[in-house]
Amino acid sequence: MRYSRFFLPTLKEVPKEAEIPSHRLMLRAGMIRKLSSGIYEWLPMGLRVLRKAEGIVRREMDRIGGQEVLLPALQPCSLWDETGRWGLYGKELFRLKDRKESDFCLGPTHEEVVTDLVRRFLRSWKEMPLLLYQIQTKFRDEIRPRFGILRGREFLMKDAYSFDRDEEDAGKSYWRAYEAYSRICRACGLDFRAVEASTGLIGGRFSHEFMILASTGEEEIAVCSCGYAANLEKVEFSPVLPDYSGETAQSPEEVSTPGKKTVEEVSQFLGAEKGRFIKTLVYRKAKELFLVLIPGDREVNSKKLEEFVQGEAVLADEAAIFELTGAPSGFAGPVGLKKKAKIIADESIAGMRNAVSGANKKDFHLKNINAGRDFQPDVTLNIIRPAKGDRCLKCGGGIELMRGIEIGHTFKLGTKYSVPMNLKYRDQAGAENPVVMGCYGIGVSRLVAAAIEQCHDEKGIVWPIALAPFSVEIVALNYQDDDMKKTADRLYEEFSKEFEVLLDDREVSPGVKFNDADLIGVPWQIVLGKKVREGKADLGDRKTGMKTEYRLEEITGIIRDKLIRNGESSPDRA
Amino acid sequence: MRYSRFFLPTLKEVPKEAEIPSHRLMLRAGMIRKLSSGIYEWLPMGLRVLRKAEGIVRREMDRIGGQEVLLPALQPCSLWDETGRWGLYGKELFRLKDRKESDFCLGPTHEEVVTDLVRRFLRSWKEMPLLLYQIQTKFRDEIRPRFGILRGREFLMKDAYSFDRDEEDAGKSYWRAYEAYSRICRACGLDFRAVEASTGLIGGRFSHEFMILASTGEEEIAVCSCGYAANLEKVEFSPVLPDYSGETAQSPEEVSTPGKKTVEEVSQFLGAEKGRFIKTLVYRKAKELFLVLIPGDREVNSKKLEEFVQGEAVLADEAAIFELTGAPSGFAGPVGLKKKAKIIADESIAGMRNAVSGANKKDFHLKNINAGRDFQPDVTLNIIRPAKGDRCLKCGGGIELMRGIEIGHTFKLGTKYSVPMNLKYRDQAGAENPVVMGCYGIGVSRLVAAAIEQCHDEKGIVWPIALAPFSVEIVALNYQDDDMKKTADRLYEEFSKEFEVLLDDREVSPGVKFNDADLIGVPWQIVLGKKVREGKADLGDRKTGMKTEYRLEEITGIIRDKLIRNGESSPDRA
Repeated sequence: MRYSRFFLPTLKEVPKEAEIPSHRLMLRAGMIRKLSSGIYEWLPMGLRVLRKAEGIVRREMDRIGGQEVLLPALQPCSLWDETGRWGLYGKELFRLKDRKESDFCLGPTHEEVVTDLVRRFLRSWKEMPLLLYQIQTKFRDEIRPRFGILRGREFLMKDAYSFDRDEEDAGKSYWRAYEAYSRICRACGLDFRAVEASTGLIGGRFSHEFMILASTGEEEIAVCSCGYAANLEKVEFSPVLPDYSGETAQSPEEVSTPGKKTVEEVSQFLGAEKGRFIKTLVYRKAKELFLVLIPGDREVNSKKLEEFVQGEAVLADEAAIFELTGAPSGFAGPVGLKKKAKIIADESIAGMRNAVSGANKKDFHLKNINAGRDFQPDVTLNIIRPAKGDRCLKCGGGIELMRGIEIGHTFKLGTKYSVPMNLKYRDQAGAENPVVMGCYGIGVSRLVAAAIEQCHDEKGIVWPIALAPFSVEIVALNYQDDDMKKTADRLYEEFSKEFEVLLDDREVSPGVKFNDADLIGVPWQIVLGKKVREGKADLGDRKTGMKTEYRLEEITGIIRDKLIRNGESSPDRA
Repeated sequence: MRYSRFFLPTLKEVPKEAEIPSHRLMLRAGMIRKLSSGIYEWLPMGLRVLRKAEGIVRREMDRIGGQEVLLPALQPCSLWDETGRWGLYGKELFRLKDRKESDFCLGPTHEEVVTDLVRRFLRSWKEMPLLLYQIQTKFRDEIRPRFGILRGREFLMKDAYSFDRDEEDAGKSYWRAYEAYSRICRACGLDFRAVEASTGLIGGRFSHEFMILASTGEEEIAVCSCGYAANLEKVEFSPVLPDYSGETAQSPEEVSTPGKKTVEEVSQFLGAEKGRFIKTLVYRKAKELFLVLIPGDREVNSKKLEEFVQGEAVLADEAAIFELTGAPSGFAGPVGLKKKAKIIADESIAGMRNAVSGANKKDFHLKNINAGRDFQPDVTLNIIRPAKGDRCLKCGGGIELMRGIEIGHTFKLGTKYSVPMNLKYRDQAGAENPVVMGCYGIGVSRLVAAAIEQCHDEKGIVWPIALAPFSVEIVALNYQDDDMKKTADRLYEEFSKEFEVLLDDREVSPGVKFNDADLIGVPWQIVLGKKVREGKADLGDRKTGMKTEYRLEEITGIIRDKLIRNGESSPDRA
């Protein structure tokens, strides 16, 4: 592709609305353009990358026996009524009426449609395992579209659905999809973790999220070197706590702490470690108040709290705290509130000895309080955020916290859809059984943005070769010079036979060419400058920034070697 | 692909709702399945063909310098207001509101969106010609969805848009697209005609329809061997008429024709040729009545009539005819009605001498009437349907009527969108001018159905090789036999390296296998039967039905030769 003919509107300015690197860089590198909130156009540069991602996803789905279909975006309400999701899905579902006033939605996912398809035809156990997938535009009316492609309202998704005879076979299908997803992330050249996750609105019994690691990622995950990884809704671990062994329970004692409200202030004032405190937080879910107890040096894992209370829990306001505890905020504690509010304690609270907490009395705290004797939690949960160094339950190793972007989600659905929709098969004995299903999604457009979150620097995008829109960019400085033009054109023709090549033939300054080249992030840059007369050029590596001089006739071979070394075993398509 | 693992639900019964061959065969061959009126699922077999068509379209668009983009299906009302089409488009536009009650539509076409995109970035004459295209799902709420994929409400379309400096360059872009469309039809292996057409709601000044010929096609076209072709809205020709030279006008004469109403009856009764009659038809558009005069042996070209009156024209009812003519239907004629209704005459009427028509009086006709003397048409038009043998205006050759299915439409838009949407560029002199546009659509899913309309027989589909879901089907009779299985598996592995192969390994009777093979229409069938023991098999040609015996080791080479001979210069993808 010649840059001068390419519809590639790069931007110098950083767009104001873009909050994260991938959004900024996709706009600046002319990959996408916003049409409306959460709705984006893919320009030629962006689409090249999207198609690369799509190709990798398709290849790996085919490899595990997936059969590609294309299901409609327009879905009739009647199908969604069969599972009750027409009522449950809420405002995220785009709904519309056709000219006959029939209700339709724009598919945010296709469980109902694919179950309806398969129940029409599937009869016998012999027809399974069956794995259908599609790569198709999905629609979700997000309450707050943001981050460009990452949380859009119209996006490209690969969704797959497995159909099996029983739990055991469904498990095999699940793990095949899990492996395919792992291969997809690896094939894209991305660092990722598959984490245990909860199932949300899709439902079912078992789930993993595939997270592309990136320091700018919107989600936190806990990982261990043994392979254990989970998101914060699901994480289980053993926190590292002070050693209380040998301490005997002493008598509770009220101490004056005038104006000292935070754990920080009280621990300084009393000369006690923060870990010695039982931090008592008053939460509210709708009209109900409840207490959450955690060690003073820890934070509440709000994802788990919301999972437990099945909804949104917020910190109570001053008035509610006063009404419950009889004291202003900062002096709440578990002692004496047993009947007034439910107490949820972190698992670590039971092992604490002679702890400090609020006395439910203005300007006073209690020392030497002990769970079981002085107060009794109603529920004990692992409800604190993990911290670096906490112990993995699987191997005892140290947990680490990382950030990532979810690009894939696998669900073991069981019979959640097959039972209400009456998808059955006859087994070998002739008996009818419900089909056991799984579903597996990858945000293909999301994958592109996540790759940029992981692979960029201050100058622009640094494409992994498998997703790169071009493998090679020829940066022809002073292309308007006849000799330069001749050489550049010749190399362009030659390389194009083997690689996907972008030739910067524009009449702009070398500075602009270098900046744009770094912005769009093609992995290999061949810089044709003054030394072309001597038959030489620089080969630049976008990732390391290293430039190496080669003779022109060597370059094809060098690039071929580099592409193969970088895991591209086959040459690019022409 | 192994048939036993393939999600290919073929149907024995002919589906009731399917009125035309492609619809019947796509359902029966397990290519598609209906989800809702005009909304179809593409099953694996169908999608393989759709992707072939998509690939051919993409290749030819790229060849003329097209750059692929992906524009959203969700389009904000505000853009459609800029061109006024939000109000004009009517019920065919699917409309919906998002959670903030903003108005959106589902794109039936993308002129507004693409013009908005280009006006954001395009500045200079240097950036043109520019050709953007996409292959994307479109939505149209058809008043009467029918014929399966052919008139659906959600379908796959390639739409392209060209941007040029002036009319001359826009013309070049138009003809490049025209050539690409011709190549696409040829590459699909289909017999087609590009016909002059009118522009409809898309607007603009110049248009061609690309018609795949098929006797079952919904549209009629007139073609000449010189290359001239037009649809019935646009056709121009010289009808072959009786020779009136040498006849002198005689005096009009009222003749009694009791109870004789049709041209047929009156001509028999009077012993005159049908061509001698002026058939006088009373039409109504809304409340206005008008007369249409054509030779008695011809039919009105209703497409041209509607084009002329800019709306729907229907034959008037008995009461209206009586009120206008003072006689029942069957006795209307042009004489004496001049001031009561507008008279539209076919061009041929002026040349007729001593014609016969109704007398506007029950049971009477007039003989020897002559245009100009006895009546005066208000409008003269070519308003009759062409008949075989009528003369081409370009070469004088004979016109033929054919039926076809429109799969592509090219439009020269001019500045219809660029002026209201303010898409301008600076020319070499620095002056601002509106960009001159064209747009070009191909129904990719439609193309698949149209191909079946052209390529089928009583047994099923007969795929042209370029669109075939597989190149070769191995029909392994008695696959459950160990020796047969071994041979079939070996051939399957061997062929799969070079071709796309379907292996029928099902445990069903030979009859079922043969019927399904003919139904799904893979071009080459390798039948493995008893002679496999002697190292021989039949190679069947789906198109001709011919079967030829070959030695097994010859077959790869034979198929390779046949594929190359059939215009597939490159081997199939693996």
